[in-house]
Amino acid sequence: MNNPAIPYKIYLHEHEMPGQWYNMRADMQKKPAPLLNPGTKQPMTLEELSGVFCTELARQELDEATPYVDIPEEILKFYKMYRPSPLVRAYCLEEKLKTPANIYYKFEGNNTSGSHKLNSAIAQAYYAKKQGLKGVTTETGAGQWGTALSMACSYFDLDCRVYMVKVSYEQKPFRREVMRTYGASVTPSPSDTTAIGRKILQEHPGTTGSLGCAISEAVEAATTTEGYRYVLGSVLNQVLLHQSIIGLETKAALDKYGIVPDMIIGCAGGGSNLGGLIAPFMGEKLRGEKDYRFIAVEPASCPSFTRGKFAYDFCDTGNVCPLAKMYTLGSGFIPSANHAGGLRYHGMSSVLSQLYHDGYMEARAVEQNAVFEAAEQFARVEGILPAPESAHAIRAAIDEAIKCKETGEAKTIVFGLTGTGYFDMVAYQKYNDGAMSDFIPTDKDLEPGFASLPDLD
Amino acid sequence: MNNPAIPYKIYLHEHEMPGQWYNMRADMQKKPAPLLNPGTKQPMTLEELSGVFCTELARQELDEATPYVDIPEEILKFYKMYRPSPLVRAYCLEEKLKTPANIYYKFEGNNTSGSHKLNSAIAQAYYAKKQGLKGVTTETGAGQWGTALSMACSYFDLDCRVYMVKVSYEQKPFRREVMRTYGASVTPSPSDTTAIGRKILQEHPGTTGSLGCAISEAVEAATTTEGYRYVLGSVLNQVLLHQSIIGLETKAALDKYGIVPDMIIGCAGGGSNLGGLIAPFMGEKLRGEKDYRFIAVEPASCPSFTRGKFAYDFCDTGNVCPLAKMYTLGSGFIPSANHAGGLRYHGMSSVLSQLYHDGYMEARAVEQNAVFEAAEQFARVEGILPAPESAHAIRAAIDEAIKCKETGEAKTIVFGLTGTGYFDMVAYQKYNDGAMSDFIPTDKDLEPGFASLPDLD
Repeated sequence: MNNPAIPYKIYLHEHEMPGQWYNMRADMQKKPAPLLNPGTKQPMTLEELSGVFCTELARQELDEATPYVDIPEEILKFYKMYRPSPLVRAYCLEEKLKTPANIYYKFEGNNTSGSHKLNSAIAQAYYAKKQGLKGVTTETGAGQWGTALSMACSYFDLDCRVYMVKVSYEQKPFRREVMRTYGASVTPSPSDTTAIGRKILQEHPGTTGSLGCAISEAVEAATTTEGYRYVLGSVLNQVLLHQSIIGLETKAALDKYGIVPDMIIGCAGGGSNLGGLIAPFMGEKLRGEKDYRFIAVEPASCPSFTRGKFAYDFCDTGNVCPLAKMYTLGSGFIPSANHAGGLRYHGMSSVLSQLYHDGYMEARAVEQNAVFEAAEQFARVEGILPAPESAHAIRAAIDEAIKCKETGEAKTIVFGLTGTGYFDMVAYQKYNDGAMSDFIPTDKDLEPGFASLPDLD
Repeated sequence: MNNPAIPYKIYLHEHEMPGQWYNMRADMQKKPAPLLNPGTKQPMTLEELSGVFCTELARQELDEATPYVDIPEEILKFYKMYRPSPLVRAYCLEEKLKTPANIYYKFEGNNTSGSHKLNSAIAQAYYAKKQGLKGVTTETGAGQWGTALSMACSYFDLDCRVYMVKVSYEQKPFRREVMRTYGASVTPSPSDTTAIGRKILQEHPGTTGSLGCAISEAVEAATTTEGYRYVLGSVLNQVLLHQSIIGLETKAALDKYGIVPDMIIGCAGGGSNLGGLIAPFMGEKLRGEKDYRFIAVEPASCPSFTRGKFAYDFCDTGNVCPLAKMYTLGSGFIPSANHAGGLRYHGMSSVLSQLYHDGYMEARAVEQNAVFEAAEQFARVEGILPAPESAHAIRAAIDEAIKCKETGEAKTIVFGLTGTGYFDMVAYQKYNDGAMSDFIPTDKDLEPGFASLPDLD
């Protein structure tokens, strides 16, 4: 142990919890490109966005100027049920690796949704309730977001309709039951409850669904049902704003002990965790006050940062959502069927895409056997069974700690442990059985996705 | 909110964590009856017990005199990875119930084993390692104990062989995979790897196993394999000693804010959680310093306290384990097949049995639909999806809080939330589908169990 004065887990007191979210866009010189109306190809107005999202959330989506946004009292009250989350010093992992590096992880899995998704779900449910809505619709793939939203809606007594990718609905009945326990209705997607669902079923009978298709159904259901709006768990600017609570708490905990990280590592699917974790640190970097390395880690089989194009693209399969400028593999991209580790969205947050494009952060892709190897190593010494998504960040953190061992540098590494893997044991079983295969798409494999990109950039 | 000065979650600092376990027996005037050798019917000696358990654990099992036992440094280090666990003020539940009662729960589910079982698993693995053993054997039903032990063994690089009740092995593949991820070998019981397993398979072809049978197999495997010992997750005196960490932390957290509980509630299967939670409070009551109400909550379908006999009984089906004097339904008792909520052991900790017999605590039995109703109510307002076992305590806490509403008394209720229900979604699904039935055994239903009691009392 390098510094006995630093406890295993740094918990903030409730009165030390951040009372505001931080909006990175306010400090970006080059702002992310605006969302475009899929019909007119013009920037979405507040009025247009308010047809899809709650009005206050639409406002947050468009607000590039306000750096700090007060967290409403009701949301703070809910946060206090599971936050502040611990910042843990990975003493046992350091010892196992025999590294001089100091490793910390911000653990967001200590709540029933099992991940950081609850931070934004409760905010979106709150604004929906405040607007007097009856309910919200959303999609879910693996189920973390759907679970988080159903918990949030149950708290505010709001109706919650989840379109769950059919293959997950059937293969992950337990996730479905958690959502039902919280009172949500869960519909396997594609379904015959929407026009787009019926169209897809007719064109692709027997399809097991996709995230892009479930998004289209959820948006249609929201925009055609009185008193409903659509909510989304990642990618959007508003989600990154809410998730900044992760980074703000992390920074407050580090500051309390005078710790300055050298690098901050997060897994990246749509960018909600990474964007939230790095937010206040990136703010310092953007304002020229401090420098940090930021590392996004994505699966080699869904490499939007490292092999995608920086272009306007559709966010969903049905092309009913606004267009976003982002690193994307194309809305027609489908990850290999052998990919087990989540993070399978074709695009990436516009904010993070712009920051990556402008050289403020790095990205790397890792293969899944290496990811599960890191997951198992971490679980055995640190006690927590990580979500496969989170294990991407663990992989990179371990790799960096091993580099430190080689160079003898005592760098400080912070990574985001976004959640737990209790509902991902099918993937672990595959790994335990030695039946997990790696897959790096060839350029040819990526072509169909890129072919689906609109001609707009 | 009744007292804004008390935070939602009271976390102790690491330096406030207890450094000793507390042994209730030292303060009991009437000690629990000794374990008996199943062959000679004489009290087990240290030497005899050391053939089954690690020597230091056998010593702890027999030690009625020492009130405080130092927690070894290596165990404290592991504890710090997931402890201190939070004592949470259930503000949202109080508000929902509109009760003047102050409700607190000690939450032990924030670790990958998902329950308090890890507190004793790490201690038992430590003493096994210290003795230079190669490995340990155990049984597991629902899988919480097996998971905890596999985590502990993985930490100390000790071989871990788990006999898992066959029906659970098949119906709970995810629990099995968690254990495998931590490197344990998991064998469905009854198996052909032991003489007692082969005998049971021959006599009952196609049996799906039972806890009592898995215990017999694990004990046989330990006593016939060089360098192995048997470990158990509940019932034993040593387990209650280790689990006293729950109560000691709870008491330290309450004392910090000057809170004095009126009643302490815990679910009771073998007694490991309840015995640990109440330990230091019971100590005060035994020494005549303070008075508290202690309430054990058990399933109506496995009512060992409320309908069992206080008698010497076998701890396992194969009758290879020592005999214990306890409240028991008989080792031949099998809970109804429709029972979903855990806590299905036929007996009860000898310490708790003696205390209950001597009037130091109360017990009540609850039916499972009422238990799952409480679980769902709690999950929706407090955010945590509880293990069905823990929900027994929630049921009683809610019932007591409702009584307070009727009488207008602002009593302080503390209950143990032993774990999370992520691996119990089959039972939740049954409840969500309205397909769960209640069952109170008739006196006739209890007869076969009582008939299996040895003639010894």
